[in-house]
Amino acid sequence: MPKPEGTQLNSTANQPPSAQPRTVLGMGRSVHDRLHRDGMLDRLLRTATVDTTLVLTAGDGSPGPALAEALAGAEVLFTHWGCPPLTEDTLRAMPKLRAVIHAAGSVKHHVTDAVWARGIAVSSAAAANALPVAEYTLAAILFANKGVLDSARSYRRTRAAPDHLAGFSGLGNYRRTVGIVGASRIGRRVVELLAPFDLDVLLHDPYLGPADAAALGAEATGLDDLVRRSHVVSIHAPQLPETHHMFDADRLGLLCDGATLINTSRGSLVDTRALTEQLRTGRISAVLDVTEPDVPPADSPLYDLPNVLLTPHVAGSLGNELGRMTDWAVDELERYARGLPFVHEVGPSELARSA
Amino acid sequence: MPKPEGTQLNSTANQPPSAQPRTVLGMGRSVHDRLHRDGMLDRLLRTATVDTTLVLTAGDGSPGPALAEALAGAEVLFTHWGCPPLTEDTLRAMPKLRAVIHAAGSVKHHVTDAVWARGIAVSSAAAANALPVAEYTLAAILFANKGVLDSARSYRRTRAAPDHLAGFSGLGNYRRTVGIVGASRIGRRVVELLAPFDLDVLLHDPYLGPADAAALGAEATGLDDLVRRSHVVSIHAPQLPETHHMFDADRLGLLCDGATLINTSRGSLVDTRALTEQLRTGRISAVLDVTEPDVPPADSPLYDLPNVLLTPHVAGSLGNELGRMTDWAVDELERYARGLPFVHEVGPSELARSA
Repeated sequence: MPKPEGTQLNSTANQPPSAQPRTVLGMGRSVHDRLHRDGMLDRLLRTATVDTTLVLTAGDGSPGPALAEALAGAEVLFTHWGCPPLTEDTLRAMPKLRAVIHAAGSVKHHVTDAVWARGIAVSSAAAANALPVAEYTLAAILFANKGVLDSARSYRRTRAAPDHLAGFSGLGNYRRTVGIVGASRIGRRVVELLAPFDLDVLLHDPYLGPADAAALGAEATGLDDLVRRSHVVSIHAPQLPETHHMFDADRLGLLCDGATLINTSRGSLVDTRALTEQLRTGRISAVLDVTEPDVPPADSPLYDLPNVLLTPHVAGSLGNELGRMTDWAVDELERYARGLPFVHEVGPSELARSA
Repeated sequence: MPKPEGTQLNSTANQPPSAQPRTVLGMGRSVHDRLHRDGMLDRLLRTATVDTTLVLTAGDGSPGPALAEALAGAEVLFTHWGCPPLTEDTLRAMPKLRAVIHAAGSVKHHVTDAVWARGIAVSSAAAANALPVAEYTLAAILFANKGVLDSARSYRRTRAAPDHLAGFSGLGNYRRTVGIVGASRIGRRVVELLAPFDLDVLLHDPYLGPADAAALGAEATGLDDLVRRSHVVSIHAPQLPETHHMFDADRLGLLCDGATLINTSRGSLVDTRALTEQLRTGRISAVLDVTEPDVPPADSPLYDLPNVLLTPHVAGSLGNELGRMTDWAVDELERYARGLPFVHEVGPSELARSA
């Protein structure tokens, strides 16, 4: 689980934070409506002084007088998907702003250098967003090692019991090897979740040494070695220029026969054309929650191949899981109100390395 | 994990067990061939004095002279699926037999009262067999709560991104309720495996009190209450006269809209006809690894309904997972050889209550 990062908030500010900090919402209309409808803002109303009818939304132009007045007094901006970029101009309307608390994953889209320059503290619920992705991945690994979806498909076709003894050779969640690419929050969480199982875990990350990997319960190794040795490979690396098509035709060719590739990170980490070619041969399988492009063209074989589980970017927070992110963000707001440090503070240096 | 049961072996025997106990295999030919082919008997050869070409097999009639001689000297019978019932007659041919070590789940099919009457110690790998069932169940729960297979199916049809904000209401692995029916080995293991997730776990078992359930991390409750409150209900009760059609039409009717029923135990615990009716309406979903009959008739809607994941009895040990059971059984044989008690000893009283 995420560790406290421990920076005391507002150490340079003159005043202590308020008991019920004046807070403004910064997010898209549809996000706001969804959170409101499902009661996910109810706790916020008990913690902060906030008018949930006033929302700073990307693309709305200049705020009306009521929103402008709320912004002028706001100490905290409580943000979600669809918050506008917090540029120098936008921030000028919020002279008292001391904290941006993001109830979703990445803050890259709205937190600019102007935020850091003003010394505004930033917290994100990215750690909460990591959990559902890791959970989806865990279930995908357990099903893949055992060939569960294959069994279901064959059963639908044959309508007969398989030969339990002669078949399934090499399958099963026992002494199989799982390779995790990227010791990101999600990658680490997947390694943690794999602890109760009789599986060997390999972990590749350019910033991770053998001792760190061993402390997590995994073996550090090079990417090609990981791909060669793993029965299931799951990608949890960030989208960066150097990770573009990290899984190209050559690297995909290193996967052993019958291996499964799981991608819940970003579509661009895999050469989708090369992957599709290999999947068509039936040599390997895939669980893909992201692709390149985001939605494959309607005639893509990925929709129909029997050895592919293709989902529409659902591994991250959805449904009730949005409530986890708002719960964690309200926890941060409560800490702020009590003068405590954020547990999930984000700084400019981390932002550069993350997805 | 299973707790040691601690009975000292052979306390009434005059001689200590041998360092390399004389051991005979008792199992079906095809089981033997499979274990042999995949190297799963290799460790046994290093631990015991055993001729793996001699196998006591159900239906083979009288043993030939070589097998008869091996049986006459055997201290240990190492068994698996397809071992004949160990009746008084069979046991008379094994006067030195002190232990039956079963490298699979239930010993009901071959361990008779005659075994207990002779004071022969019995060990079973049922606890090892519980693990893959619990793992299949965990993956099924995580996918069901999130509607992952539904998403994949819709995506195949629409070939368009879903509305991530408006859709998925009520889904997700956060603050959802999972009901576990039966505090069996498997049921308890599922509860353990659910510990890292933000899910509320209900547990029903006629032999389990609230304090025991709380110690496991679950809330004890009545069966109907569990069925009403759970988003996913998973059955892990034994097959007994009183559990026959435990899930009949009335009880299935208590499941909330959108709930998922998982059955990896025995088909007879669910009224398959009533379940099929409810599944046809689309009101609920199911993950079924067992049905009644074992293989549904070819025209059963269970094969084709989109809200059913039907697998051919694969949740238990398969493939490499057979190796876990032989590994655990050889561990028991090693303990026996050193005069230590079995960790997974089975007694007549447990047998009556188990599947």
